[in-house]
Amino acid sequence: MVQQTKIEDDITIAQQAKMKRITDIAASIGLSVDDIEPYGHYKAKINGTVLNRLRTKPDGKLILVTAINPTPAGEGKSTVTVGLGQALNRLGHKTIVALREPSLGPTMGIKGGAAGGGYSQVLPMEDINLHFTGDLHAITTANNALAAMIDNHIHQGNELGIDSRRVIWKRVVDLNDRALRKVIIGLGGPLQGVPREDGFDITVASEIMAILCLSEDIDALKARLAQIVIGYTYTKKPVTVADLKAQGALTLLLKEAIKPNLVQTLENTPALIHGGPFANIAHGCNSLAATKLSLKLADYTVTEAGFGADLGAEKFLNIKARIGQLDPSAVVIVATIRALKMHGGVPKDQLKQENVDALLNGLKNLEKHAQTIQGFGLPFVIAVNRFVTDTDAEIKVLMDWCEKQGFPVALTEVWAKGGAGGEDLANTLLPLIEAKTLLNTKLTHTYELEQTIEEKLHAIATKVYGASHVELSSKAQKQIAEFKKNGWEHLPICMAKTQYSLSDDPTKLGRPQEFSITIREFKPSIGAGFIVALTGDVMTMPGLPKIPSALAMDVDAEGKAVGLF
Amino acid sequence: MVQQTKIEDDITIAQQAKMKRITDIAASIGLSVDDIEPYGHYKAKINGTVLNRLRTKPDGKLILVTAINPTPAGEGKSTVTVGLGQALNRLGHKTIVALREPSLGPTMGIKGGAAGGGYSQVLPMEDINLHFTGDLHAITTANNALAAMIDNHIHQGNELGIDSRRVIWKRVVDLNDRALRKVIIGLGGPLQGVPREDGFDITVASEIMAILCLSEDIDALKARLAQIVIGYTYTKKPVTVADLKAQGALTLLLKEAIKPNLVQTLENTPALIHGGPFANIAHGCNSLAATKLSLKLADYTVTEAGFGADLGAEKFLNIKARIGQLDPSAVVIVATIRALKMHGGVPKDQLKQENVDALLNGLKNLEKHAQTIQGFGLPFVIAVNRFVTDTDAEIKVLMDWCEKQGFPVALTEVWAKGGAGGEDLANTLLPLIEAKTLLNTKLTHTYELEQTIEEKLHAIATKVYGASHVELSSKAQKQIAEFKKNGWEHLPICMAKTQYSLSDDPTKLGRPQEFSITIREFKPSIGAGFIVALTGDVMTMPGLPKIPSALAMDVDAEGKAVGLF
Repeated sequence: MVQQTKIEDDITIAQQAKMKRITDIAASIGLSVDDIEPYGHYKAKINGTVLNRLRTKPDGKLILVTAINPTPAGEGKSTVTVGLGQALNRLGHKTIVALREPSLGPTMGIKGGAAGGGYSQVLPMEDINLHFTGDLHAITTANNALAAMIDNHIHQGNELGIDSRRVIWKRVVDLNDRALRKVIIGLGGPLQGVPREDGFDITVASEIMAILCLSEDIDALKARLAQIVIGYTYTKKPVTVADLKAQGALTLLLKEAIKPNLVQTLENTPALIHGGPFANIAHGCNSLAATKLSLKLADYTVTEAGFGADLGAEKFLNIKARIGQLDPSAVVIVATIRALKMHGGVPKDQLKQENVDALLNGLKNLEKHAQTIQGFGLPFVIAVNRFVTDTDAEIKVLMDWCEKQGFPVALTEVWAKGGAGGEDLANTLLPLIEAKTLLNTKLTHTYELEQTIEEKLHAIATKVYGASHVELSSKAQKQIAEFKKNGWEHLPICMAKTQYSLSDDPTKLGRPQEFSITIREFKPSIGAGFIVALTGDVMTMPGLPKIPSALAMDVDAEGKAVGLF
Repeated sequence: MVQQTKIEDDITIAQQAKMKRITDIAASIGLSVDDIEPYGHYKAKINGTVLNRLRTKPDGKLILVTAINPTPAGEGKSTVTVGLGQALNRLGHKTIVALREPSLGPTMGIKGGAAGGGYSQVLPMEDINLHFTGDLHAITTANNALAAMIDNHIHQGNELGIDSRRVIWKRVVDLNDRALRKVIIGLGGPLQGVPREDGFDITVASEIMAILCLSEDIDALKARLAQIVIGYTYTKKPVTVADLKAQGALTLLLKEAIKPNLVQTLENTPALIHGGPFANIAHGCNSLAATKLSLKLADYTVTEAGFGADLGAEKFLNIKARIGQLDPSAVVIVATIRALKMHGGVPKDQLKQENVDALLNGLKNLEKHAQTIQGFGLPFVIAVNRFVTDTDAEIKVLMDWCEKQGFPVALTEVWAKGGAGGEDLANTLLPLIEAKTLLNTKLTHTYELEQTIEEKLHAIATKVYGASHVELSSKAQKQIAEFKKNGWEHLPICMAKTQYSLSDDPTKLGRPQEFSITIREFKPSIGAGFIVALTGDVMTMPGLPKIPSALAMDVDAEGKAVGLF
């Protein structure tokens, strides 16, 4: 990420950091050695008994960090989340940050790593970016064990009558591997199974990832796994994991993965990093188990939802918060002047030049997200992540605009200054949280579960995206009829939409007007408990670029990682 | 495994065990908290610095456990390995057992687990049988990251001129998934890559697994990874990982996996469980890093090699021992009366009936393996693993036969009695080890590296299998010519042969006479440093049975594993 001052790069800062032993971090939030399972000296899993023990303890306050629609200019949402957690701790408030686990695919492809940045990082960043505590590997394995059991069932006589053309359960790898998007499996004659068309997704797009993130404990996990629909019979009856009797084995494979992971930030703020579902094909938030636990262990929990408020926050508030009965005390909307200028029409290579008009134009994107959060009935602060290229004139325009709109705003410098750079943001947030507690206002969902699928789609498209209406393909219309028959009508909707625009067209930046949202098709994620609505060309298996970032990776003579950033 | 007395099943014994904390087990072999990376309270990885620190310390004694050709009756080689380690410790000798890591595929398919049995198990058996410390997942990921980079290279313009029909690098999953044996990938048009025929192996068959097991440290690992041949150009020139510049990233993905894992047995004997290459497609022994470390940390190391002495031990002694400059002090050959009766022609359902003639007939299999070990110049003890169905007459026949042959023999009851049941075996072994040390005799390899490929094949087939000659398919003959051109002639040979027979025909039990070994084709494993010679139909991706053992797996109300055994 391009940032404002010349400081060391992320991995250098991370490798020079003085971490505390994880037992000390655990002790700082009241956890004993027996409450945790150490993974090395600086990572641990927290046992399920802890949440049980704290059931009756009142919850702390939850702060949700979201953003404008992402641009190639970078917003720094994770960095702000970590920095805000550090700032609250500096101000004497017992705070935990709750983040998602990075996926190896993007790390080895383009990103090179994802654990905050500058002086607002989570540690040990090398481990977090590589295998961490193995959660994603456990999900890959459970996902693919189910796939193997499905094809084995068909091969061994197909007692359930599964239509091999209507298997919807795909295999996964935690890699960007475009050659696996569309494959034919089972070739080679009767001894090698039944040939059929198939495809692989990236692990974070697996329904099992979504399930893990929405299951508070082992029992909930097993119940959700049992309900996964893997395909249909020749008579179009849904076939579930329970029909295959595979839920016990899948739960066994996931029994450690469901335990939240404890690490720390550069300033020794405790951090729970757990779960990382794709924010387009799934709900894109960290795990409910980690969020719930954090609320018991700390006075303030700072968490983030993927992409902009139209995607991650919408799903956090309408899906995760509903299942987990969460009610955030406040929201942070992250923006940068650079990104707002891109929304205002400036190409990436001209961002360094002052452009007040483009900024004013781009602010319409921010305006929509702020109104969306207002629509949920939640207080918010706009966090402007400062870059060295921001001019005084641009900052003044932005601050004046916020004042005119009545939007609370704070400048942050968490990348260069760590928690100290987030104190203004914290001090702007705290009175809002206090006020909401005093007024006892409640979160307003965008739709009610009892509404029809069409009504729910309309509500999200118009209220959250600002669309005028929803168009359904003929396939989507047929699917709605089938879903009603299967009793799936009253599940929440998980929108799969481009993150780059409020609309379903990634080229429409800013705040598009008078547009429709086209639903191409639906994917039932019955185990996760939602219906995925696919718009545009959503990619569930990314590809590698011509020069993958993996080519720069190495291990140095001391055994340290090289090439993660 | 059917055994002699009615005791609890393996998982019940394992779950009732009183384990010591892994820090205490580490301390018992002189390791501090900073020498290890704990994974929970009962597993740890040992840092690479330990072996460096102990470089100048003299090695302890190495005991290699092998067996007759396996039968469905069961031999209990791992159980004897663990039991012997426990016995040596009971007798006051500082001993470590060094085993292989189980693969999830067979665990979820047929075996249900693999960590010894009865009162000679390694713990925590649940973890060891599931994800353990993530080594196999790291290998899967590195293997598949390389595959993704290969297909991405071809997709992005194919600068190296890789012939997509001659890519020999396959993807892997750590599962039994027959539908992935033969697949077509890259379908869907120009955006999804270049279509080609491909296939998946099980992770333990990956060349990266073999490389991990033959690399003493990170530098050796990176050097071997760089030499992997992934396929050929249109002009038939080998393409390596170094050509793709991927060795750094692969090493980074494996930097934790190369650290040996420390656990304990039921009697708190330290155990290193690390690496698990297939004993047919690869060399089938635990890692060199773990073996070397164990030799520094203990006076006695007990380790096993896969399948019978014709496969695992042959490869241990000709491949691993040569690369690692190891010289075992003694060998244990495990047999059971039940299995010997099967080799003598008794079907599995009639094993309970006394049958002295069949036993005498089956002893010819044992005789050949004993002679093979003599051919390596190593002292050995035959360990007869007792079952309740063994009759006094059968035992007498066996003991008399051993006496007549001049073969040292000991009865063991390690399954029912733990270390106490292995003391006779230990007491029979120890004087042999002392004698070998005194005489300072050296291991004799079956062939020298300078010999031609044909000569090496002939040496293994005649000396170790008792075959009369070797036949080469025309493909194999062509490959030998190419390998000579590529400079690969002086690598050791890794035989891929059925484990059930001394011959390449799994139905020929006992000691077949007058047979030839047919080499179908070769697979170059240049990174691992050997040429795999394939005989018969070697399976590198198993399938699930009609009722996979996964269907009986579950997690109980207390979070404990159910259905592992």
